[in-house]
Amino acid sequence: MSDLEELRVRVNNFANERDWNQFHSPKNLSMALIVEAGELVEQFQWLKESESFDLSTEKLAAVEEEIADIFIYLVRISHQLDIDLISVANRKIELNETKYPVEKVRGSARKYTEY
Amino acid sequence: MSDLEELRVRVNNFANERDWNQFHSPKNLSMALIVEAGELVEQFQWLKESESFDLSTEKLAAVEEEIADIFIYLVRISHQLDIDLISVANRKIELNETKYPVEKVRGSARKYTEY
Amino acid sequence: MSDLEELRVRVNNFANERDWNQFHSPKNLSMALIVEAGELVEQFQWLKESESFDLSTEKLAAVEEEIADIFIYLVRISHQLDIDLISVANRKIELNETKYPVEKVRGSARKYTEY
Amino acid sequence: MSDLEELRVRVNNFANERDWNQFHSPKNLSMALIVEAGELVEQFQWLKESESFDLSTEKLAAVEEEIADIFIYLVRISHQLDIDLISVANRKIELNETKYPVEKVRGSARKYTEY
Repeated sequence: MSDLEELRVRVNNFANERDWNQFHSPKNLSMALIVEAGELVEQFQWLKESESFDLSTEKLAAVEEEIADIFIYLVRISHQLDIDLISVANRKIELNETKYPVEKVRGSARKYTEY
Repeated sequence: MSDLEELRVRVNNFANERDWNQFHSPKNLSMALIVEAGELVEQFQWLKESESFDLSTEKLAAVEEEIADIFIYLVRISHQLDIDLISVANRKIELNETKYPVEKVRGSARKYTEY
Repeated sequence: MSDLEELRVRVNNFANERDWNQFHSPKNLSMALIVEAGELVEQFQWLKESESFDLSTEKLAAVEEEIADIFIYLVRISHQLDIDLISVANRKIELNETKYPVEKVRGSARKYTEY
Repeated sequence: MSDLEELRVRVNNFANERDWNQFHSPKNLSMALIVEAGELVEQFQWLKESESFDLSTEKLAAVEEEIADIFIYLVRISHQLDIDLISVANRKIELNETKYPVEKVRGSARKYTEY
């Protein structure tokens, strides 16, 4: 069993043991996920970009915790919708490779639709 | 190499080949991540909870793409900050097991701080 | 001076007196705004839709505070970009009236683009 | 009737005429609001802070539209919960004036809780 699969089992057990499936509709989990994403953004909101690479020990620990929360809800919502995280990510990268060909976008952050 | 590690390499190569490291500060990646989280929430905003389990083929495909985008940015920001996704998630679950003991929270969604 | 204009002056004075203009780039303010929006979503994430109309006194006070924070950052980012909130909102409603004609969308939440 | 009050009436009429009250629970409106906040963040995600003050005409128009959407949903959720936007914002600023006294926080973006 892969690390990710082990995590999925553990996250599901955690919710099952607490009888939390009743709250874990995909709708609600999308809300929980963006709440955690907001807490991640909060860590960076007043920092300069360069400062955001070089976090204090305390700040890094807070960031790690928010990233963990996002990942846990991502694993959980994927489970509830029977989505394989690794597969959809690989498929999306393949799509992005077509949408953003290297020779066309090198060094530019303009969005695909702006080309 | 695990599936997740392979994905990490692939996501990094994708950015490197396009010279996008200059845009990928943790600050900016936290923004990109929440933008994608917003697009996920958009899929669910007018659905009832029960409807959010039972998506049309078209809606499910859109949800899969948003989940993929969130995962890709999560992998990317973790890389930029040298954070191991699996480790921090497991550590967070252990913390949650202490904060939300089964016998205390079964069937309740009240937040830890409200106990 | 309208209530909204008075609020704008007050919000700006608050930032000026604290020498916080250096942090208040539109980029950073968009982050601060979504952080507060996340805190608003947090209040509702595990509630049923019907429950979200009928909040406890404590919950309503928390919601009011988050709504205030969002409004304050909205006023602030609009000021920094010289945007008139009332004008752009009225313009947007006019646009929406064209995009979502009553006879076409009554009772349906499908997005304009899905028609 | 103030500009803001006129806007509130107009926003409510817009929803009523389309029979959209059924979708406009506070829970759903909090989701719609953060979706729009995400679209605002998207406009700024790859810009430097200095660039975010100096937007192209096209970018500024997009930002204005997102700000309008956020404002409209903020007016709408406040109406559904019988919250007076101006009052809660003024009350919050008074609270902030106590929490962040000028002499203590001048030039620092550390959060209140970090003091």
